[in-house]
Parts: sequence; C-alpha cells; structure tokens
Amino acid sequence: MDRLKHAIQEKGKVLSGGVLKVGSFLNNQIDIKLLSEMGKDIYERFKDCGVNKILTVEASGIAIAVITAQFFNCNAVFAKKSKTVNVDGETYSAKCFSFTHKNENNLIVPKEYLGKGDNVLIIDDFLAHGEAVNALINIVGQAGATLSGVAIAIEKGFQGGGDALRKKGVNLYSLAVIDSMDENKVVFRD
Amino acid sequence: MDRLKHAIQEKGKVLSGGVLKVGSFLNNQIDIKLLSEMGKDIYERFKDCGVNKILTVEASGIAIAVITAQFFNCNAVFAKKSKTVNVDGETYSAKCFSFTHKNENNLIVPKEYLGKGDNVLIIDDFLAHGEAVNALINIVGQAGATLSGVAIAIEKGFQGGGDALRKKGVNLYSLAVIDSMDENKVVFRD
Repeated sequence: MDRLKHAIQEKGKVLSGGVLKVGSFLNNQIDIKLLSEMGKDIYERFKDCGVNKILTVEASGIAIAVITAQFFNCNAVFAKKSKTVNVDGETYSAKCFSFTHKNENNLIVPKEYLGKGDNVLIIDDFLAHGEAVNALINIVGQAGATLSGVAIAIEKGFQGGGDALRKKGVNLYSLAVIDSMDENKVVFRD
Repeated sequence: MDRLKHAIQEKGKVLSGGVLKVGSFLNNQIDIKLLSEMGKDIYERFKDCGVNKILTVEASGIAIAVITAQFFNCNAVFAKKSKTVNVDGETYSAKCFSFTHKNENNLIVPKEYLGKGDNVLIIDDFLAHGEAVNALINIVGQAGATLSGVAIAIEKGFQGGGDALRKKGVNLYSLAVIDSMDENKVVFRD
C-alpha cells in the first residue's frame, strides 16, 4: 500500500536491534487518516471471505483491528498478554515470544468470545518471526473457528515469519513487506 | 448514553472487588457499532472545543480513542505503561496506580508527540479513582498543551475520581456514570 510505504520512508526510523520505529504514525501516535485507509485496503482484500470476527493482540494491534472492524461491521476481539482480574471463565491460551521486547507472553482469549461459528481475520501491526500470528492461529484452531486470513500492516520479510505462513497456505496480506533495512535505507518487496 | 447503559445492564457483570466486567462489548471483545456510536456521542459533546489531539492509555483506552479520533479527524496518542525498545528520545512521564490490577505504572508519552500547540481531549474506557486521568492531565501540563476536556465511557461515580475532577473545573463527560453496583443491580446517576 503506497501511502503506508511513503510514511515508513519519510517518518520511520530504523533503531538498533532491527527495530523499525513507526511511533509517529502507527503506534504511540496514530495518523487516523492513514489508519482508515489501511483498514479500507484490508477490507477490499478480504471482503468476499465471509469474515465475521477480527482477532488481534493488545496493545498495538488494537487500533488497526478496530478501524478495520468498522468496514466489516463485525466485532473485534483482542487477546490479552496476561489474565487480569476482569477476565473470568475459561480461556484459550497460546505461548508467544516477543523478539522486540525479549519476553514470553501467554496470549489469552476467553472462550465465550470465539467459537465454531466464527470466520476469523487475524490483524496485527507487525509481522516479524510470526510468533504472535502463530499463537493467534493456534487459538483459532482451539476454538474450532475458521481462519479466513491474516492481515498485517508491516511485514519484516527478512525475518521469515510471513513466508513461512505463506508456505503453510495461510491467506496472508501485508500492506508493506520490508526486504531489508538499515539506518539509511528501507527496501520494500515488489 | 442510553445504548451503553443498556449494554451494561444486559451484558455487564459485577465481579468481586468492585470490578465491572464489560469484556463482551467494550474490552476484550469490542461491539464495533456501539463503539462507533460512543465515538460520535463524544464528538458531539466536544466538537466546538478545538480538539486537535486525543490522548489515552494503552491498552483498553485505544479502541475508543481511535474510533473517536475519526470523528475529530485528528491524531490519537497513547501513553505506554513502560518504556519499550521502540521508544527513543525524551519522554514525559507520570506515575499512576491501578486499583484494578493493584500495581503502579509509569505512564510515558514521547515529547515529540505532544506539545504547546495541542488542544487535547483525554479519553479512557473507565474512570474510578481517577489515577490514570490525573496522570494524563499531568502529562498535558508537562507538555504545555491545553486540556479541552476528558471523555470517559464508564465512570464509577461511587469511587469519587470523576467528582474530584469536576470540582477542579475539568470539562468531564462520562457516557455512563454508575452510582452503585452489586451482583444483582447497577444503578446509574441521572
């Protein structure tokens, strides 16, 4: 998606450790016009897939998931990274290592919000090694729901998680795929 | 706001420790139609206040903040609860105790996303003792920005944070104010 790629080129910043900072428009501060266009773009790609639920992970996936849910006119569910006092009842859970934050989380979704009748589109802001998406796919499986596809804002193609999902036959759509990046240059996949 | 009050009555659940669970429609799972109506309602209340930035806290404030930002056509900024590897540069910060989670967080906003020219509407899903909102107001002050007002989905009126803000002259709008609640009944303020 050209507008997102332009924003990454103009406003993104490559930090040490392979971290791409997009805090000024996609995370921490959200450019609402860009986010709406991204949601619409995802909708156009998956509008004929019968999606009736969007699934993401807190915190940075929530913004893009909710904006996109408006176009599908469906509910959005977010997995929490820990069981909090306002979660009661049974839950699905799946382990997920974060390479950005160097910690392991247990993603949790209450069973009451995801089930057999659901046709799920997983959405997240970043895809790198694919840990979070694979954990969410695991949870969709536990729920007996159907996976329609996966939509990602920025895929770090050089970290391989996206291509591994494509090989498994997952219907993956990334608005921008980065093939390489360093302090001076971000190169997108065609 | 009647539709929110109805949802709380029909789908909310009062858990032990004064926790109101609204996970099926406002948190964990998001009813996108209701959320859009809430965003529009907040916009109607503050549309003449010159708001050019919305400020919230991760994670549960993000959904309502982003949806509302669409109506104002302005950027949304969310405070993080810890400094992560994708935050570089100088930050504003303010301490905030969570009565729900029984822990203290240090709310952090990068200085580059909030400044003197900003006219800020603070948005959050819950207001109880007012810890998070007061921390955000503190950050607005540190930034030299102007506070237009505070919009809250659900105010727990019996915990006093909202009335303390009103006494200080804060332009506070809560879509639903709960005066008392137990397992059998939620009573709203007129």
